[in-house]
Amino acid sequence: MEAFINYLKSKGDLSADAAESLRSISKSKKIQKGSTLVRQGQIVTDMFFVVSGCLRSYCVDKKGKEHTLQFAIKDWWISDYTAILNNEPAQLTVEALQDTELIEFLVSDIAALRAQFPELEAIQRKNLQRHLVALQKRILNQLQLTAAERYDLFLKSYPNIEQFTPNYHIASYLGITQESLSRIRAERAKK
Amino acid sequence: MEAFINYLKSKGDLSADAAESLRSISKSKKIQKGSTLVRQGQIVTDMFFVVSGCLRSYCVDKKGKEHTLQFAIKDWWISDYTAILNNEPAQLTVEALQDTELIEFLVSDIAALRAQFPELEAIQRKNLQRHLVALQKRILNQLQLTAAERYDLFLKSYPNIEQFTPNYHIASYLGITQESLSRIRAERAKK
Repeated sequence: MEAFINYLKSKGDLSADAAESLRSISKSKKIQKGSTLVRQGQIVTDMFFVVSGCLRSYCVDKKGKEHTLQFAIKDWWISDYTAILNNEPAQLTVEALQDTELIEFLVSDIAALRAQFPELEAIQRKNLQRHLVALQKRILNQLQLTAAERYDLFLKSYPNIEQFTPNYHIASYLGITQESLSRIRAERAKK
Repeated sequence: MEAFINYLKSKGDLSADAAESLRSISKSKKIQKGSTLVRQGQIVTDMFFVVSGCLRSYCVDKKGKEHTLQFAIKDWWISDYTAILNNEPAQLTVEALQDTELIEFLVSDIAALRAQFPELEAIQRKNLQRHLVALQKRILNQLQLTAAERYDLFLKSYPNIEQFTPNYHIASYLGITQESLSRIRAERAKK
């Protein structure tokens, strides 16, 4: 929990009172690889902050194919934000790709604390801005880079991810087939 | 300007004082089709709220090809957020696709007002959340829908855009070639 408080402090001013209140609404959890935190079709009430390990959010299309929206490693938040914002059932599933240590917050508890401690608004705003910029970058990369270039950037952002993530997850994040991913890897191995 | 204040009020509580201060830092502008508000490589100091008309943000890759990140119509904000957040030169260009009425704000003025009126933090947070959800949806659509399905969704979001937007802008937003876009349109016309 201290790692999380320190992380927040690094992102903005956080009073001792706000930190204490955050502690009081937080729930530290260790979950096993393969556990599911959010399930497609269900109501979403929680947000998750990753302390260690890796979570993945994905949706399943009509043909049963998975599409990965996000990998969340240390210091990232994850949930189904669309479901939360629009108050609708989850389109995403969030699962653990490794044994993962996380901090769980009820969205309603965070909203109540935001009203009490305006500094939390600023911290969340900055967090949203960073997330927005990351998504814009991903969209621009998808539009202008080759699959091989996107794969290289992906490995820079998630250095050890290949050790615990099946190929089809990575392919489903990059928007390419597993065959294309294998081909890119084979070319990289030759270099 | 009143349309803008009413828009903000619809998104959250806005005190008369905050509204007045927002008025004082805003600059209403009418710009002509083809005008440029942000240029790739330059420092970005402003954010733009569209009252009427349409703005587009795009980047140009090494081969000189344009890639469209955003079309901003009525009630959307646009700028190069990455440049602003990371304090680096613009990677994007923002131009007017139509004669456009907009409200211009200095990013530094908005920051100063946020410190003065915490309610503006909440309004901006909600705005960022909506934008984030829109970008996540776009990424998921890019991963799981066909080009034709993405084109149909695009027309639902921007109903009249084909009247003033060249094909290559739309193709460069959808991440397809102009030839693919023409084929999809020809198929739609047959139905």
